[in-house]
Amino acid sequence: MVMRNEAIKYAELNYQRTISFLNEIISIPSISTLPENSGDMQLCANRLMEKFKDLGFEHIQLFPTKKHPIIYADLLHAGPDKPTILIYGHYDVQPVDPIDLWTSDPFKSRIDGDYLYSRGSSDMKGQIVACLAAIEAISETGRFPVNIKYIIEGEEEIGSPNLKPFLESHKDLLKSDVALNPDCGMVGINTPTIVYGLRGLAYFELGVFGPDHDLHSGVFGGVVHNPAQVLIDLISKMHDNNGKITLPHFYDDVLQLSENEKAELNRLNMDDSYYKSQTGVINTWGEKGYSPVERIGARPTLEVNGFLAGFTGIGAKTVIPAKAIAKLSTRLVPNQDPEKVHQQLLEFVKANIPNTVRWEVEMLSGGHPSISDTTIPETVALAKALETVWGKKPIYKREGGSVPVVADMQQILGIDSVLTGFGLPDDNIHSPNERLHLPTWHKGIGALIHFFMNLES
Amino acid sequence: MVMRNEAIKYAELNYQRTISFLNEIISIPSISTLPENSGDMQLCANRLMEKFKDLGFEHIQLFPTKKHPIIYADLLHAGPDKPTILIYGHYDVQPVDPIDLWTSDPFKSRIDGDYLYSRGSSDMKGQIVACLAAIEAISETGRFPVNIKYIIEGEEEIGSPNLKPFLESHKDLLKSDVALNPDCGMVGINTPTIVYGLRGLAYFELGVFGPDHDLHSGVFGGVVHNPAQVLIDLISKMHDNNGKITLPHFYDDVLQLSENEKAELNRLNMDDSYYKSQTGVINTWGEKGYSPVERIGARPTLEVNGFLAGFTGIGAKTVIPAKAIAKLSTRLVPNQDPEKVHQQLLEFVKANIPNTVRWEVEMLSGGHPSISDTTIPETVALAKALETVWGKKPIYKREGGSVPVVADMQQILGIDSVLTGFGLPDDNIHSPNERLHLPTWHKGIGALIHFFMNLES
Repeated sequence: MVMRNEAIKYAELNYQRTISFLNEIISIPSISTLPENSGDMQLCANRLMEKFKDLGFEHIQLFPTKKHPIIYADLLHAGPDKPTILIYGHYDVQPVDPIDLWTSDPFKSRIDGDYLYSRGSSDMKGQIVACLAAIEAISETGRFPVNIKYIIEGEEEIGSPNLKPFLESHKDLLKSDVALNPDCGMVGINTPTIVYGLRGLAYFELGVFGPDHDLHSGVFGGVVHNPAQVLIDLISKMHDNNGKITLPHFYDDVLQLSENEKAELNRLNMDDSYYKSQTGVINTWGEKGYSPVERIGARPTLEVNGFLAGFTGIGAKTVIPAKAIAKLSTRLVPNQDPEKVHQQLLEFVKANIPNTVRWEVEMLSGGHPSISDTTIPETVALAKALETVWGKKPIYKREGGSVPVVADMQQILGIDSVLTGFGLPDDNIHSPNERLHLPTWHKGIGALIHFFMNLES
Repeated sequence: MVMRNEAIKYAELNYQRTISFLNEIISIPSISTLPENSGDMQLCANRLMEKFKDLGFEHIQLFPTKKHPIIYADLLHAGPDKPTILIYGHYDVQPVDPIDLWTSDPFKSRIDGDYLYSRGSSDMKGQIVACLAAIEAISETGRFPVNIKYIIEGEEEIGSPNLKPFLESHKDLLKSDVALNPDCGMVGINTPTIVYGLRGLAYFELGVFGPDHDLHSGVFGGVVHNPAQVLIDLISKMHDNNGKITLPHFYDDVLQLSENEKAELNRLNMDDSYYKSQTGVINTWGEKGYSPVERIGARPTLEVNGFLAGFTGIGAKTVIPAKAIAKLSTRLVPNQDPEKVHQQLLEFVKANIPNTVRWEVEMLSGGHPSISDTTIPETVALAKALETVWGKKPIYKREGGSVPVVADMQQILGIDSVLTGFGLPDDNIHSPNERLHLPTWHKGIGALIHFFMNLES
């Protein structure tokens, strides 16, 4: 208990230094999807490797992949009779467009009131820095009670194409008892949250190709099937009037919510008015027959993430575009399978596309949904830590986002994940003006210290 | 007859000089819709004014408008007992994007075989230069048989917002017996064509607005109505399964084709295989119950000219976009009215938009359709001129494109238009690699000389 208090005190005394390190990491524009930022990816990985060295990690190694390298570092002082925790992180961030909606430079952190603004502050450089701060506080004031293996990948925001092969080929190196994944968040500043379910993802690009060049809409309007119109008609058919997705057999593998889970989820008070205030929409929308929190946590969705065709500048241009493209993605729930959904989409397009156009479907990324056991000792240790810091029991939640690595670690390494994180729903992650609520994050560092210390017993 | 031959000879001898002038005019990127090109608009107008001066035009004046100026020039040597022809032109061109599909600089004319490539070569700087070359040939070798008033506007490609007010406030200055409008084209290199019908246009921008910022599709997918999805569903409903437009009362004012017109139009041999070869589509499409040439000439259409929402770069970004916009336009036929169609669209959106989003419809431009009398002496003079040069009678056609000034001149100045032009359907107007078929254009200069001389009698 003395040692625990020393660690907490250390974290408090070094809080400004922790923020400085966060600022430093944030200033590196590690956008994994853009080829022009590949140098920044390397830079960010190097800076984290240095940090692991400063923290006394022993085996530190950068594993190259086909795209962005994976960082591995371990601290095994606790010894072979103590449990080993595999901590997961990602050092890549989302693109920043539309850039004109940012009120300050996305890669220069700006503190305004309780918030620190910048790309990656919440998702998830802030979470990585919180973990490292907790580890440092314990290491500097005593002895780490468990063994740690830490991996930080650089491709989470592009669907982690090289993580699964890495897990598969490094089973021995990564052998652990449980994983800690701080890539989730809390429901609200006063609601400590444990996530036990995650949606999967299947992301596609659809292209429809008509004439071999853009045409004058007067000269050819009436004989050519406009590719934008074709893609619009196709996508429109993917939902029915009840907001259900119409891909063939799409719901066959969907696990229905139990009455107990329904009750627990609906305890969250995340109702229509909550989501209206979070998003600014005038009315919510979704699959009929389910509450908002059920729809987000436990029901699959299909979204148009992007659509581009023809002339979209200022003014008017009377063209029939030669092609139209859409970025479409589905969020999947247990036990749906991204590759199966890929096949369902192909089947759907084949059945519904007219014979006036050429088309193409490319799967850009996919990840499995997951559900974790909430009764394992590590999850109990986390629940106790959150209760210590917030003074109330955490709620248990199924998350709408996707952390496919959780399912991958279950399947490949045979370990469950404890899911936490100190971001909030209005952090604008993946959006302009992403931000981190500093008081919550600050508490999070404390909670992580308690979590690690709770594993002692 | 001697004078006519002298003029033809003059045009032949000066053909290379005519091409040089075309190259010069083409090198000025007079894109009316882009604010950054407003200086080029002025430059292009100035160069044409100089040319009118060189040709001996007397009253030459630039009329400023709210946007781009209108050039007026007249040559009234024939005297008050001779007829006066009002020639129309536009010196503005379409934007050049997608620029990467051009094989050479759009504003540097490149000759390859029979074609001269550049933006504006066919639509319609080439047509202006052909007219000026014909006028020069006659003026330099004799006396011009009729009076000429020439107006060239700079806003045709953005819907001529300031032309109608100009016509209304300058009725005396523009008083003429008939108009010559060379902004049309020929059906094929061996098919001299007289256009007697034109479609109108109503061009809109539709915006749908959902959340107040782009959202993470995992965190919020299931409670927010995706604005791209809403706009897609809305646009999809604008056509029925027969390719008919579903705006309320849209077809009420559509003039049905007579059996005679149907027969004449279908004589054109512009069938499915013709349009497939012109456009590269694998199959044609359109309103059921009409042939391709009927659909283009005499039936209205609604096209998606542009659509933009969310992330459209390389790779994947899992956003629910905050907004979606579409550029939509309808081509109208007699007796449809663009403003009525605007009201029909508003009514349609109100009836079909869900209560989950905000929306906006802006009308960007509109122009009336028109039909001209083919028996007036000036059209007969043109038919004779075309027959002289091509050795065969012209065909009569209703054009799919829009030249709203024809209806405006009918209504405001009380004059019919004779419609011609020496562009071809595969000139890629409004598209990358716009081009002009030089042998046809060369013949066109001769035909215009014969046309003016035919007005003598």
